[in-house]
Amino acid sequence: MATSKQRQAEVKRRLTGLADMVIAAAAKKKDPMMKIPVRSLSNVKFNGKKRIIEMGKKKQERSFFNLGQAKKFMQTILVADALAELQNANLTTSLREIYYRTKHTIEGSHENTFDGQNESDPLIEDLEVSLAALREEFHVRADNGGTMVGPIVLEDDGDRIDCTKLGKGGYSIPSIVEPGYIDIKKCTADFVLLIEKGTQWNRLSEDKFWKKFNCILLTGNGQPPRGVRRLARRLHEERKLPVYVLVDNDPWGYYIYSVIKQGSINLAFESQRMAIPKAKFVGLSSFDPGKYDLPRNVGIKLNDKDINRAKELLNYPWFQKPHWQKEIKGMLSSGLKYELDALANKDFQFLTKVYLPQKLKERDWID
Amino acid sequence: MATSKQRQAEVKRRLTGLADMVIAAAAKKKDPMMKIPVRSLSNVKFNGKKRIIEMGKKKQERSFFNLGQAKKFMQTILVADALAELQNANLTTSLREIYYRTKHTIEGSHENTFDGQNESDPLIEDLEVSLAALREEFHVRADNGGTMVGPIVLEDDGDRIDCTKLGKGGYSIPSIVEPGYIDIKKCTADFVLLIEKGTQWNRLSEDKFWKKFNCILLTGNGQPPRGVRRLARRLHEERKLPVYVLVDNDPWGYYIYSVIKQGSINLAFESQRMAIPKAKFVGLSSFDPGKYDLPRNVGIKLNDKDINRAKELLNYPWFQKPHWQKEIKGMLSSGLKYELDALANKDFQFLTKVYLPQKLKERDWID
Repeated sequence: MATSKQRQAEVKRRLTGLADMVIAAAAKKKDPMMKIPVRSLSNVKFNGKKRIIEMGKKKQERSFFNLGQAKKFMQTILVADALAELQNANLTTSLREIYYRTKHTIEGSHENTFDGQNESDPLIEDLEVSLAALREEFHVRADNGGTMVGPIVLEDDGDRIDCTKLGKGGYSIPSIVEPGYIDIKKCTADFVLLIEKGTQWNRLSEDKFWKKFNCILLTGNGQPPRGVRRLARRLHEERKLPVYVLVDNDPWGYYIYSVIKQGSINLAFESQRMAIPKAKFVGLSSFDPGKYDLPRNVGIKLNDKDINRAKELLNYPWFQKPHWQKEIKGMLSSGLKYELDALANKDFQFLTKVYLPQKLKERDWID
Repeated sequence: MATSKQRQAEVKRRLTGLADMVIAAAAKKKDPMMKIPVRSLSNVKFNGKKRIIEMGKKKQERSFFNLGQAKKFMQTILVADALAELQNANLTTSLREIYYRTKHTIEGSHENTFDGQNESDPLIEDLEVSLAALREEFHVRADNGGTMVGPIVLEDDGDRIDCTKLGKGGYSIPSIVEPGYIDIKKCTADFVLLIEKGTQWNRLSEDKFWKKFNCILLTGNGQPPRGVRRLARRLHEERKLPVYVLVDNDPWGYYIYSVIKQGSINLAFESQRMAIPKAKFVGLSSFDPGKYDLPRNVGIKLNDKDINRAKELLNYPWFQKPHWQKEIKGMLSSGLKYELDALANKDFQFLTKVYLPQKLKERDWID
């Protein structure tokens, strides 16, 4: 495996390679042209063997001398140039700032290079797939988007961060957690618990669940952002930790789990480096309210949107296993969904003291 | 000033005092009754001298033997009871879990104590104003909601957290930052920079702006959550630090600043412990695009909603100072708003290297 420095040099080489291609074509008086993998739904499939959603092999050409492609070609090169500037200065920035940085009036005209961020964002995705690098490797970040506590020591910008010594608050997970940005110096945890919502994460952190069960508590406050998914994947891959996912019992919870596990349809090209095909669904299952004696009045009636979404999920290839069909149909036939918060009906600490310990002890999860 | 332990004991005493009141009334065969300050707009005013938005003195009575109030009275006592349970067990929880905890079917009936969280949330606010305590003091939290770096050392749950040693990622600010939860052990910063958006916070953190300018960098990723506001207020009050606010140049940016400074209309009762009347607006001002030579094409055309909101702001009593009228009218007459992100048009590090240093050097802010 390449070191983080080698990888960074490689990404930089690929970006500047684009400029070289344009220069070489110009020198030969040829049409500069790029081949870009097609990011549309038609080029996405579920790989049943690897159990991830991935892109097919279709590519499209984008050239400078094609009138319909000239502007887009120029925009792509402008974005690549801004990304190369970030590499050279060793800076990170946001999608929005890339847009602003590359926006100017084209000399001798009244036309702007870009009229909106909706023009520059897709080009960054084009470059990701063409150059086979994550946007994080291009130094493009989002906001900090998650929190972590547990027996792990990180190095971030020369600082050694011991996540057992950050109180209840924990470590704020940056958007970019690639090796070289964030290094995992030490990790003695037995598993990762990835929790959908901050409120349950707070419960578990306050109760020092990570100490008793020797695990890492991660949350992304809803659909986990890329940094949280990537960190979970690194812990799984580099430290061989099992990843257990705890979400609400509703179609959105199932979907969050499925994105963590096999990636998403929209961003299929990142599954290879983001998905965790062995992630386990630890709850909240449609059969938990019965098992843990939750009253029906803390369930929430499924609405039409829930029902339609659940039916869609039933058809996804990655939910074809019999236990998943049973799980989703169980929810539909009860007519109810349950939030994890509803466990508080039993006791404020029911999650920490009863529910999760029993789940882990009985290995009561779905794959 | 009371110690944090004394204050906690006092809050507990006030909560259990409610139960005592009910018992005492029952013993005397009298109608148990509470007086609750009115939280409606009619009871909110701007105190021009203290320069905060605060509640008036109007109160309403809520009693058990009044048929129209009996259910609400019972619900209020149930919520207070759940809050007392949290005090006794020294636990924190969320608004949503309070709802689930207090929800049950009333014995001998088919009626639920609560049918939705919209019934329990206002009662927590009623208890806040009646018992003059913040919900955080009742141990009610939201998600972690902000990030901080800089020369400050905190104690959180027995851990000593040095915010100069947390890399670029920083400290994830918990929802509850009251003394006793989070103690400020040491702080050598000269000021607090409270930044609206995470993207500029990341820029400044990456560039170690806090080191060069000896300040604390705080963000709440948008409208700052209560924990961030309360922490800024504590740093201002306990450590006498000036607070500078950096927001987008649009009506929503002005409003974010105004909530930090004098509190909000909806939650007027918390201004006394959340507002920072001396907070300064450091940018982005309507006159900055001219001063810093930003091209007009990175401005965004004001839409009708922006224009109406700006006109509303012009009428607020706390925006009556001439420089504020000039600032807001300046935006209206230019017809443009600017995001902080637009500074990247000059250079990715323009914010860190030119804009903020010049602002601070020239003391170019609005009060």
